[in-house]
Amino acid sequence: MILPNLREAFAMTTSGNQHNEVRATNITWHEGHVTPEERNALLRQKGATLWFTGLSGSGKSTIAFTLEHALVQRGHLAYVLDGDNIRHGLNKNLGFSAADREENIRRIGEVAKLFADGGVITMTSFISPYRKDRDTVRALHAAGNLPFIEVHVNTPIETCEQRDPKGLYKKARAGQLKNFTGIDDPYEAPATPEFTIDATTTSPQEAAAQLLEYLEKQGILQHA
Amino acid sequence: MILPNLREAFAMTTSGNQHNEVRATNITWHEGHVTPEERNALLRQKGATLWFTGLSGSGKSTIAFTLEHALVQRGHLAYVLDGDNIRHGLNKNLGFSAADREENIRRIGEVAKLFADGGVITMTSFISPYRKDRDTVRALHAAGNLPFIEVHVNTPIETCEQRDPKGLYKKARAGQLKNFTGIDDPYEAPATPEFTIDATTTSPQEAAAQLLEYLEKQGILQHA
Repeated sequence: MILPNLREAFAMTTSGNQHNEVRATNITWHEGHVTPEERNALLRQKGATLWFTGLSGSGKSTIAFTLEHALVQRGHLAYVLDGDNIRHGLNKNLGFSAADREENIRRIGEVAKLFADGGVITMTSFISPYRKDRDTVRALHAAGNLPFIEVHVNTPIETCEQRDPKGLYKKARAGQLKNFTGIDDPYEAPATPEFTIDATTTSPQEAAAQLLEYLEKQGILQHA
Repeated sequence: MILPNLREAFAMTTSGNQHNEVRATNITWHEGHVTPEERNALLRQKGATLWFTGLSGSGKSTIAFTLEHALVQRGHLAYVLDGDNIRHGLNKNLGFSAADREENIRRIGEVAKLFADGGVITMTSFISPYRKDRDTVRALHAAGNLPFIEVHVNTPIETCEQRDPKGLYKKARAGQLKNFTGIDDPYEAPATPEFTIDATTTSPQEAAAQLLEYLEKQGILQHA
């Protein structure tokens, strides 16, 4: 539905004095939703989700934030959902039971979908060890006709455990952390991810550069 | 932390042939988070949440979508969270008990905060009848140094009930809907909202135009 333009709108409120108030006379007022095409044109990009999955310490967040920076520098809007902004906020009322872990990934998937629908290149950085949970998020994006790019950060557990940036492997080995992925809980590797990063031979910067190129080839990033 | 530039990154992967692959040699790779200032510069806007509150049928969504369109036409990124994209997605596992209604608004508030943090002009369109719940979301935004603009769409219940676009008042009067805001559940009007819209004298287009002007005056929208 197309509504009267701004001049008319202001004329209704500022009778007799509308010309001083009018800031733009060529805006048409629409009630309907902004289309994906209108969003694409704004940022020269398609909203999409890059779902990073891999063991703790595999390098997911480092790659995601490196790519985010490169995208913003090129004039694209990107955003990373990770433990820092999710676990203490949206999902702070979830624990680590099987049901809560599933709900954790479900909510993150729904939020990623909203961001992608909003036109943002969205990256999620969570271990997300279960194939079923990731496939549910994939299906959710497919239903909304939104690209879902599963990025498997395939760093061997020996390397992750050696890095152990948060000291979690040490705690898990000491029995202070239960159900720790890779130690006493399984990691189900993606069968057919869109992208695999071997972090033993690929630096975060190389990985980000390769992902940038992938996004361009997929038409998710467009040039001016 | 500043990382090697793209030329070096590509050089590592495409030894002997890097020049064909290099797409931009002047990108510096950062691992750290993109700053709010970098996001602002990209869209000439500050991320912010406009929280529309008011009775069912008061016109919240119509105003929000009209403003969203106007913002995108001006080159700003905006997104509306409403029943359509939240109730069937993120909050589909919530009912209408007191606890679930509180959790409903809590999650929406957290998602709005994430969007605002991402640099998006975020609008939420929910009755959100309880002052305590809205104040919790306000505090959440304050903690993140993100603007929170409470917009009270103050349409008299008589007008809302006459409009009844979803037939909900009719059902509530017939006792088919329990705990319906304004009928058998209270609506707690904001005490000091940033913005009040009297929908009996202000059209959705006028309201959107006034909010646009407000956002400019607040410095949330910047000019090129």
